[in-house]
Amino acid sequence: MSNHRREQSEGDAAPQRFTKGHGTRNDFVLIPDPEGRLALDADAVAAISDRRGGIGADGVIRIVRTAVSGVEVPGTDGAESPGAEGVEGADPEGAAQPEWLMDYRNADGSIAEMCGNGVRVFAACLDRAGLAGSGDFVIATRAGARRVEILERPAAAGDAWQVRVGMGPGRLTEPERTVTITGRTLPAWDVDMGNPHAVALLPDDLELEDLDLTVQPALDPMPEGGANIELVARRGERHVAMRVFERGVGETQSCGTGAAAVGLAAAHWAGDDSGQEWRVDVPGGSLVIGFRESEMTLAGPAVIVADGSLAI
Amino acid sequence: MSNHRREQSEGDAAPQRFTKGHGTRNDFVLIPDPEGRLALDADAVAAISDRRGGIGADGVIRIVRTAVSGVEVPGTDGAESPGAEGVEGADPEGAAQPEWLMDYRNADGSIAEMCGNGVRVFAACLDRAGLAGSGDFVIATRAGARRVEILERPAAAGDAWQVRVGMGPGRLTEPERTVTITGRTLPAWDVDMGNPHAVALLPDDLELEDLDLTVQPALDPMPEGGANIELVARRGERHVAMRVFERGVGETQSCGTGAAAVGLAAAHWAGDDSGQEWRVDVPGGSLVIGFRESEMTLAGPAVIVADGSLAI
Repeated sequence: MSNHRREQSEGDAAPQRFTKGHGTRNDFVLIPDPEGRLALDADAVAAISDRRGGIGADGVIRIVRTAVSGVEVPGTDGAESPGAEGVEGADPEGAAQPEWLMDYRNADGSIAEMCGNGVRVFAACLDRAGLAGSGDFVIATRAGARRVEILERPAAAGDAWQVRVGMGPGRLTEPERTVTITGRTLPAWDVDMGNPHAVALLPDDLELEDLDLTVQPALDPMPEGGANIELVARRGERHVAMRVFERGVGETQSCGTGAAAVGLAAAHWAGDDSGQEWRVDVPGGSLVIGFRESEMTLAGPAVIVADGSLAI
Repeated sequence: MSNHRREQSEGDAAPQRFTKGHGTRNDFVLIPDPEGRLALDADAVAAISDRRGGIGADGVIRIVRTAVSGVEVPGTDGAESPGAEGVEGADPEGAAQPEWLMDYRNADGSIAEMCGNGVRVFAACLDRAGLAGSGDFVIATRAGARRVEILERPAAAGDAWQVRVGMGPGRLTEPERTVTITGRTLPAWDVDMGNPHAVALLPDDLELEDLDLTVQPALDPMPEGGANIELVARRGERHVAMRVFERGVGETQSCGTGAAAVGLAAAHWAGDDSGQEWRVDVPGGSLVIGFRESEMTLAGPAVIVADGSLAI
């Protein structure tokens, strides 16, 4: 596994540094590469993400200056901007390119445009390193610029940051399909968060804890390309809990866009147009979904677990 | 998770160092604690082993000087030695206590006496740090002293050490029970490697790859306390492959004592009393089983994946 080595030799044989962290138990290895010198190919990402032969993570995030990243960021200087006009607050200055790019890869090495849990850990790393500026800043992702706010810093080692991130707009469609799970067929709301979600509210006699998510719940009709499926239980005032079956993955402990989709659906079901925040519990922790004029926000914890050097 | 912090304050707030490594994909976090200052309780071990909230590993190994470890090692100075007379070569000088103790815990925090894959990674760490002396040395484990030989050192970063370790004697019993797997009932040889194994040879029309090990194969009669179950396929001259269902765990990618048990059974089945080595392939790699006068040996790779500091 030599392809995460520096492309340009600098005469140093220093091993590659990394940080491991998680947001609601969605975990990541972050690789600092400020000057964009790493050739982090799919094989290297898969080797690092390997939970036994490597460090282990759901994804790998390269921390790289946008200008040298070689990645086109929608809505910023010189890049084509399909839909970027919808990213509210993404660029307060109206011109400057965000300094840091979250270059995210899934554990298998494939590219993902955004990760709502990963971006919080990314922001915590920048904040800890003093690279984030003040508490409110903008970062670049492959999905466009994203506004990030540091809400809380850890009081002691091992404590969590609390970070809010702009998730772009969400779009909800009244049920045109059903989801069948544990023998029950329920109406499913389609929510587009940049990626597709099918969200269903459980009836009172069906417990979230009793659902069988070892197999994929059936959608009828099945959307082309599939969808992430969220099952939701009411918990209290502006408070729900969810479980998620991510398409192509299976049940996971947390899904940032899924939590945002659920927050949007839950506010809709409750007839709540107050714009106030909703708490969405996921198996890996608790998230808070907010509503700005033209986009949704996701707030939650980010924990830095370890720093180190790769020996592989 | 503060219980892995140093018990004695030394005025330094240095974070706890660790190394991650694996042997045939059985992976470990190793914690250097030469002076025995850490209170590494079960909660701390579980937090470190957590694959999403921590570093992630099958087990945690504290690297501690035997003299200050607080652990009684059978067969060494001042300790009771039940059965320690059987540990050939464990103490060439006949008196000296092994300097380093492998203090092994399972991922759930429980104590295990020995781990044949872990001891190779432990030895690689000592060797890399120049603490192992020459290529052949003795370490302490809760199961007694163990002779360790460094057979190969890595040629480049990320390559494996090759390490041989004394596993103590193995004892084989002709079948008194059967194992039933994938609808077939096969005779099972009991092998005692300090822990119990039930070893079965697959008939030619049953492929190792086709076995269903998502559920525990049935043993009849079931031994009191259960047993690890190994299924074995012939591969060539003094060469077999195995899969293992570890009691209380499920299928794993490697089991050091299981490979030794399989090597002993395979030599027996072949009528091989030459004392020559057997190769035993496991899902996570390949191991070599040897026979000394009064004990078996296990040789195989040890890879150091990363070094770092815990932030939790």
